[in-house]
Amino acid sequence: MKKTHKIILTEKEMPTHWYNIHSDMPNKTMPLLHPGTKQPIKPEDLAGLFPMELIKQEVSMEQFIEIPEQVQDLYRLWRPSPLVRARNFEKLLDTPAKIYFKNESVSPPGSHKPNTAVPQAYYNYKEGVKKMTTETGAGQWGSALAFATGFFDIGLQVFMVKVSYNQKPYRKSMINIWGADVVASPSGFTESGRKILAQDPGSPGSLGIAISEAVEMAAKDPETKYSLGSVLNHVLLHQTIIGEEAIKQLEKTDDYPDIVIGCFGGGSNFSGISFPFLRDNLLNGNKTRFIAVEPASCPKLTRGKFSYDFGDTVGLTPLIPMYTLGHDFIPPKIHAGGLRYHGAGAIVSQLLKDGLIEAQAVRQGESFEAGIMFARTEGIIPAPETTHAIAQVIKEAKQAREEGVAKTILFNFSGHGLVDMASYDKYFSGALHDYETTEDDIRKSIQKLENISV
Amino acid sequence: MKKTHKIILTEKEMPTHWYNIHSDMPNKTMPLLHPGTKQPIKPEDLAGLFPMELIKQEVSMEQFIEIPEQVQDLYRLWRPSPLVRARNFEKLLDTPAKIYFKNESVSPPGSHKPNTAVPQAYYNYKEGVKKMTTETGAGQWGSALAFATGFFDIGLQVFMVKVSYNQKPYRKSMINIWGADVVASPSGFTESGRKILAQDPGSPGSLGIAISEAVEMAAKDPETKYSLGSVLNHVLLHQTIIGEEAIKQLEKTDDYPDIVIGCFGGGSNFSGISFPFLRDNLLNGNKTRFIAVEPASCPKLTRGKFSYDFGDTVGLTPLIPMYTLGHDFIPPKIHAGGLRYHGAGAIVSQLLKDGLIEAQAVRQGESFEAGIMFARTEGIIPAPETTHAIAQVIKEAKQAREEGVAKTILFNFSGHGLVDMASYDKYFSGALHDYETTEDDIRKSIQKLENISV
Repeated sequence: MKKTHKIILTEKEMPTHWYNIHSDMPNKTMPLLHPGTKQPIKPEDLAGLFPMELIKQEVSMEQFIEIPEQVQDLYRLWRPSPLVRARNFEKLLDTPAKIYFKNESVSPPGSHKPNTAVPQAYYNYKEGVKKMTTETGAGQWGSALAFATGFFDIGLQVFMVKVSYNQKPYRKSMINIWGADVVASPSGFTESGRKILAQDPGSPGSLGIAISEAVEMAAKDPETKYSLGSVLNHVLLHQTIIGEEAIKQLEKTDDYPDIVIGCFGGGSNFSGISFPFLRDNLLNGNKTRFIAVEPASCPKLTRGKFSYDFGDTVGLTPLIPMYTLGHDFIPPKIHAGGLRYHGAGAIVSQLLKDGLIEAQAVRQGESFEAGIMFARTEGIIPAPETTHAIAQVIKEAKQAREEGVAKTILFNFSGHGLVDMASYDKYFSGALHDYETTEDDIRKSIQKLENISV
Repeated sequence: MKKTHKIILTEKEMPTHWYNIHSDMPNKTMPLLHPGTKQPIKPEDLAGLFPMELIKQEVSMEQFIEIPEQVQDLYRLWRPSPLVRARNFEKLLDTPAKIYFKNESVSPPGSHKPNTAVPQAYYNYKEGVKKMTTETGAGQWGSALAFATGFFDIGLQVFMVKVSYNQKPYRKSMINIWGADVVASPSGFTESGRKILAQDPGSPGSLGIAISEAVEMAAKDPETKYSLGSVLNHVLLHQTIIGEEAIKQLEKTDDYPDIVIGCFGGGSNFSGISFPFLRDNLLNGNKTRFIAVEPASCPKLTRGKFSYDFGDTVGLTPLIPMYTLGHDFIPPKIHAGGLRYHGAGAIVSQLLKDGLIEAQAVRQGESFEAGIMFARTEGIIPAPETTHAIAQVIKEAKQAREEGVAKTILFNFSGHGLVDMASYDKYFSGALHDYETTEDDIRKSIQKLENISV
């Protein structure tokens, strides 16, 4: 009897709608506030940064939103993505648990990020936008948006966090191949960047700083719009294609997840795989657990504070109600650059506050160990971000063994690590530090949140 | 009406047999000769290097050979691979031609190489082998064999051509992640390496030299076997899974290829996609054209000589009847390291001699241009080797436009370029040389073949 590894959907079976969890949440998110007036933000306040269709999605209460045909067509370049039963990994872990992963690494840029990059580029194109800006951490978002804007002849300026710009040169090259421009952030191109450099010329940068630069450039030019790769509601919305596909794929088996796991930076890949299953908890009384896994060095979910805070370091974005470490918290230079973000976004934070999802923190060394175990059994080399999810899967699989229960675990394989090999080299050479942020660092950074009076 | 991009086979539809074209060739290949006695080689002469099952496949005249169940199971980690209709690329080329590609980049190492790495590791494992050696050019073969030997707990020493070892550091890291060892070749570890280094301490290496090193190390240790990633009959045999899948996939459309294209180093990916379709030419009178595309800097098919020659530089392998530039020809340092090989293997050479396949040469600059055009339309960034096939596809698609004929073109997308980004950087910076080998270089190298009396 041949055992199947991959559960495949045809292109015709691809879901045609994104799921908007906001419509089903028992407690809605508190409103975003204008950074100047501290009043609830109005759609027109955001019109300088985003096309109107995305602003509508940001505040929509519709349960499902149709995916435009042109976006579906581009999705089909790599979607539906495979759902894989990790049989070899299960065997290595000697667990009664069934482990499935959704392989989002099959997209051309190698991660889940094009799921939102393509619709964002599309809606900008439909409203006549010719130039966009964005930030990127490890480069997965920047390369995905370069890939997407290329299809619509939109120019793109990417601000890439300096530490990753130096650690991950190949992602810069990908951005160039797809026709976009990229600079290290903090840069001298913006007031925000110059301000940071004046304070700390050796600043490694952070996602918060890079967002400030990209937002500033877009805000100053009426022809230019800004794009964010995570955190915001419309971004999480687009990522739900992952979970909607996984539901259809698991229907072809006898299994349903007891636990859903995703690594967590701003929340987009975790939300993408979780929200469609969480709908069954909210509406049908299911008891699936959802675990967001963050790095121990940037623990906003497990050790941050629920508060209004800026999305960027300089304070240009709306105030977001969220779990945060404080907007000027600069995380240690871990290799999972995509997880180096101080805040968690409004929807995920509300869900965590309401006990509808859980959070765990994992150290860098543990995550690389997990990644290598996975690569040696399932073959694929995970991105440093993704290894955090895998480390948690290992814990849950061991727990299942101790309990003797055949749980079904589903995790999001958010991206491959082929462009992050230098990180693995460091791990093997023993030069990789196991950062953990101290109580004192966190306390000091969070204290400053008191200055934000709303 | 939604247009389909990918034609998918389920794991259950995966072919269960490899196709051995040797059984159907009108003229069989001339025998391999022992490098010492110059007599046709006997199976026992190869027993020090290869397990017996692979030696049997090397000389088999069976038409189909069953794929062992354990190999099929590992294949299913990534196979069947998608067949993709390159609709966006067709549109860019404004051609009436239909262009399909078989996407072999979806394997964990990112190329077609695991198709033979896995069965080679398996047959070695079945015969109790604990250690293997191999050479690698760009690292695609070395990383694929590391991936494969890892599943069977076989130790592996990879000799990687020095120019690629320095150009492509990430493939070394992949080899390490999957648990194997890698050194730059020529190395000081073998007599062959030391001999080359004594003559030319700055030698960039070549596949021929690296083969000498790997063969020497295996020959000297009765516990160690050697593995080759191309050229030999059993390697080409294993790659036919590509074409066998493509046949089943095209049966789901109304199309059949008029032209089949693959880039050409030692012949494995070209043969893998071509031979199953070539069967229809040989047995059913079809008229499909098969085009092997080599780099202009290493033009053994278009400008080499059909002769007995060694597979390696030092002269340790059997003498192979093939198109060759001479076994001590050192190709210029082009970025398509996998195509830097002096010879073409016995089966492909015989087919070319008999006019059953064609060959074309493409320059490096032209190939990178083609690769970027492809990346900007279909999304995926091709390996420098694969861009050679794409450059030829462009020529044939333009020809189809001029003729106004809706030909069907099928090519093998042998691997992605995510680990070769430094090569694209060089292209963009203008630092990439457009090598072409001179008539004089070729004449001198080929002249030395006269010293090989058989």
